[in-house]
Amino acid sequence: MRRVAAERAKRLLIRSFLAPQSSAAVSSPFSFLSSYSAAAMSTASTPVVSLDSINPKVLKCEYAVRGEIVNHAQLLQEDLKAKPGHHPFDEILYCNIGNPQSLGQQPVTFFREVLALCDHPSILDRDETHGLFSADAIARAWDILDVIPGRATGAYSHSQGIKGLREAIAAGIASRDGYPCNADDIFLTDGASPAVHMMMQLLIRSEKDGILCPIPQYPLYSASIALHGGSLVPYYLDEASGWGLEISELKKQLEDARSKGITVRSLVVINPGNPTGQVLSEENQRQIIEFCKKESLVLLADEVYQDNIYVGDKKFNSLKKIARSMGLGDKDISLVSFQSVSKGYYGECGKRGGYMEVTGFSADVREQIYKVASVNLCSNISGQILASLVMNPPKPGDESYDSFTAERDGILLSLARRAKALEDAFNSLEGVICNKAEGAMYLFPRIHLPKKAIEAAKAANSVPDTFYARRLLDATGIVVVPGSGFGQVPGTWHIRFTILPQEEKIPAIISRFKAFHESFMEEFRN
Amino acid sequence: MRRVAAERAKRLLIRSFLAPQSSAAVSSPFSFLSSYSAAAMSTASTPVVSLDSINPKVLKCEYAVRGEIVNHAQLLQEDLKAKPGHHPFDEILYCNIGNPQSLGQQPVTFFREVLALCDHPSILDRDETHGLFSADAIARAWDILDVIPGRATGAYSHSQGIKGLREAIAAGIASRDGYPCNADDIFLTDGASPAVHMMMQLLIRSEKDGILCPIPQYPLYSASIALHGGSLVPYYLDEASGWGLEISELKKQLEDARSKGITVRSLVVINPGNPTGQVLSEENQRQIIEFCKKESLVLLADEVYQDNIYVGDKKFNSLKKIARSMGLGDKDISLVSFQSVSKGYYGECGKRGGYMEVTGFSADVREQIYKVASVNLCSNISGQILASLVMNPPKPGDESYDSFTAERDGILLSLARRAKALEDAFNSLEGVICNKAEGAMYLFPRIHLPKKAIEAAKAANSVPDTFYARRLLDATGIVVVPGSGFGQVPGTWHIRFTILPQEEKIPAIISRFKAFHESFMEEFRN
Repeated sequence: MRRVAAERAKRLLIRSFLAPQSSAAVSSPFSFLSSYSAAAMSTASTPVVSLDSINPKVLKCEYAVRGEIVNHAQLLQEDLKAKPGHHPFDEILYCNIGNPQSLGQQPVTFFREVLALCDHPSILDRDETHGLFSADAIARAWDILDVIPGRATGAYSHSQGIKGLREAIAAGIASRDGYPCNADDIFLTDGASPAVHMMMQLLIRSEKDGILCPIPQYPLYSASIALHGGSLVPYYLDEASGWGLEISELKKQLEDARSKGITVRSLVVINPGNPTGQVLSEENQRQIIEFCKKESLVLLADEVYQDNIYVGDKKFNSLKKIARSMGLGDKDISLVSFQSVSKGYYGECGKRGGYMEVTGFSADVREQIYKVASVNLCSNISGQILASLVMNPPKPGDESYDSFTAERDGILLSLARRAKALEDAFNSLEGVICNKAEGAMYLFPRIHLPKKAIEAAKAANSVPDTFYARRLLDATGIVVVPGSGFGQVPGTWHIRFTILPQEEKIPAIISRFKAFHESFMEEFRN
Repeated sequence: MRRVAAERAKRLLIRSFLAPQSSAAVSSPFSFLSSYSAAAMSTASTPVVSLDSINPKVLKCEYAVRGEIVNHAQLLQEDLKAKPGHHPFDEILYCNIGNPQSLGQQPVTFFREVLALCDHPSILDRDETHGLFSADAIARAWDILDVIPGRATGAYSHSQGIKGLREAIAAGIASRDGYPCNADDIFLTDGASPAVHMMMQLLIRSEKDGILCPIPQYPLYSASIALHGGSLVPYYLDEASGWGLEISELKKQLEDARSKGITVRSLVVINPGNPTGQVLSEENQRQIIEFCKKESLVLLADEVYQDNIYVGDKKFNSLKKIARSMGLGDKDISLVSFQSVSKGYYGECGKRGGYMEVTGFSADVREQIYKVASVNLCSNISGQILASLVMNPPKPGDESYDSFTAERDGILLSLARRAKALEDAFNSLEGVICNKAEGAMYLFPRIHLPKKAIEAAKAANSVPDTFYARRLLDATGIVVVPGSGFGQVPGTWHIRFTILPQEEKIPAIISRFKAFHESFMEEFRN
């Protein structure tokens, strides 16, 4: 049956994708470098726009997660296809990005059932549907259709997202935190990134406006601040104390920025940490909230890894929950929490769903946020539906509850084992120190590079950790992001390594990495 | 069967959406004003951010399609629910926005079948699936899965979109135009709006950079130019010649802008026109291309209504096709074409799919465009899939071909009839002149308001066409956008009226509108 369909597919593929210039339709998801060779040929010169006539903010913006190392990996992947066996590895392992399903993680069945039914509601009444879909998925699809005006899943929604879905998300937040949540505070977005851009666009007036960001940070923040022409005010996380966030450091950097004439508008906190994986303690969160209140800073809380906790002694607490537990309400602190369907155990990166919960802003400023949202009309409805599902998964008694919890726990327990195995492996290596991944999807080991390696990097006109990552890629096919892409204490070198490769691959990855690292240290031993 | 499911749905709705503050989960898609009352109460004052401390570009940005009149309509809709029979109408008719499915247009079955199967591929092998889905939808779903690396529909894709889907789109463009299209020129986006923002962000460095935009224009352009801090350089379409685009007017406005020290970077052309509905002639398109080439302007071609043509003597020609037919290639002209899944006969606004075809840019500038795209990772995969489908619909011989063409032609022929009926109705009214809607989804009638009405508007501190639209809304429940939201020749007044209400409702809408207009003219007769 499958084979028949596959053969038909091949035939139709050829027919339906046939085009004058079209080469094989099957292709890698990262073939843009090969694209450029073609592009370069076809557009040798253009009189109208050149690098020195585009917006300099665009030139300044950098995003290392898809930067130099990844571009080289894409070339290698093309090369592997063209000349199999030509490299010391037979596949490229993308450990550079938190993209679980690209590394084999399967989607949660219940979520996909509901999405499929909402995409094609006319099958909801058919008998065959009950043979294909769980009863609670069918019921949930009806729930969702009932809150979509006219059941029009193909219509633009309210620019904050469908009210009934925001009610569901607010209900999920309220039960998570134990404090009320207002559906009118929810702005649904195409993943968390556009929400971050919206807040940067609102807050940044010029390079004199500063945003306090952790170092190391997820480069979306540095990229967005650059695109909006603001100043990134760094505060360093303390690697020695497990990437601790010290209030004294926040104060020092805030005063330093102010002494330079920077108006600091906001503090970005990433919890659980990316790339650092630490989970903030409640006491630390209270200090952060007090600091923002005292210094009149908007607290931007990146909480997209809220479902990714791997250690028994830590749990996720939203900053809003902690603020409310301190008796602080809307009048006391301006707080924006970002959540995404791309992370957690769901890992639905391709669906581009997410939201921001906006609290502590005046009605007139909220109207400005709404206005900017309305210019883009609305976020995609499937992403809106999925956001309502991840905040309201199956409950005890629902038909899917047992299979859902098995899928969820299977993913999270495996991620915890992978994190531990990789952490232990890194710590077993000469000159490598790796903090525990308490949460999120990454390890950020520090690598004490030999003086000779640093000199070799300089000679190769490369940053030392980029030099290391490039050598790692060429030797093993493993793609990581150099620490310099996230920021680090000057003179220290790191790499970000996702814990996402499938568990059965971890031992081979560890031994490949180990062998590379040992020979690298041997080659550059002082 | 349906009833059973619906009753179960109600129960689950109450359980799964229950929240401390949650009111009724079923709600209008435009309830944001009622939100704000709540918001205003909960955030009476906030010390951190105020209107005078946010980015002034955000304050300056306006988007009339969801502006003052729509906000008032949302209030009325709440009021209708609370006090039925309290108004001279029993429903709000949203004729302000091109949102077909919100007014009852049904999605195209084949497209939804494929989307559902790609959302839940594990049913592709099941026997029941063949009873529920057409054979070519199943085959197309396999085609698509085969071009997605690892069949991971939940993974981030290449930041330009999945290569195999771009190949399919390029094939569709090539067969539409009869000229080759390179998949590497396609950037898939969440609808056309983010693509427009990306180009504005690339081109605008300061208020000294200008973008030539038609007046009247779709306010996304004025909003995006404001958000990016550039200058909108207006050129007026000639209403007397059916909203003709005169090259002499382009020249005049370009020279005028340059004399003021503005560097004009780009020309925006909307074809078919929004809000004007005109379809450009090939001769006119050749003149436009020559003008951009001569003046070194990037040609931004808004071609999202390419499938919405209602008159036999006009057909859609892409500006790229015309440029290629003139022998002009990548080296001769920088041209960006925008397309969306929200318009056409598909009208899938909620899916947020679209693309831009970027030609005539150097490789290094394209890399900058790619970099900005990569910061947001990728557009939503369902939207990417849908974009590949609308550019490659079922073909003769496919099982769905006949039903697909019946659905498509049914929608387009009905839209043509609605456009003609509304045009005739407007032209039958005192003081109203309405050009034909050759394409797109709107009529833009000119209304010669009596002097007394203009004085009454001024007295009410309102713009005359906004005053008219507000009176229309209060009397009939019909929501339109005042011409002042799109721009118009000073002293002329218009409204934008979508042709999208279902055909059986058109006669009632016409008589309600007619009655209102006659009494309005009577009331304010000079």
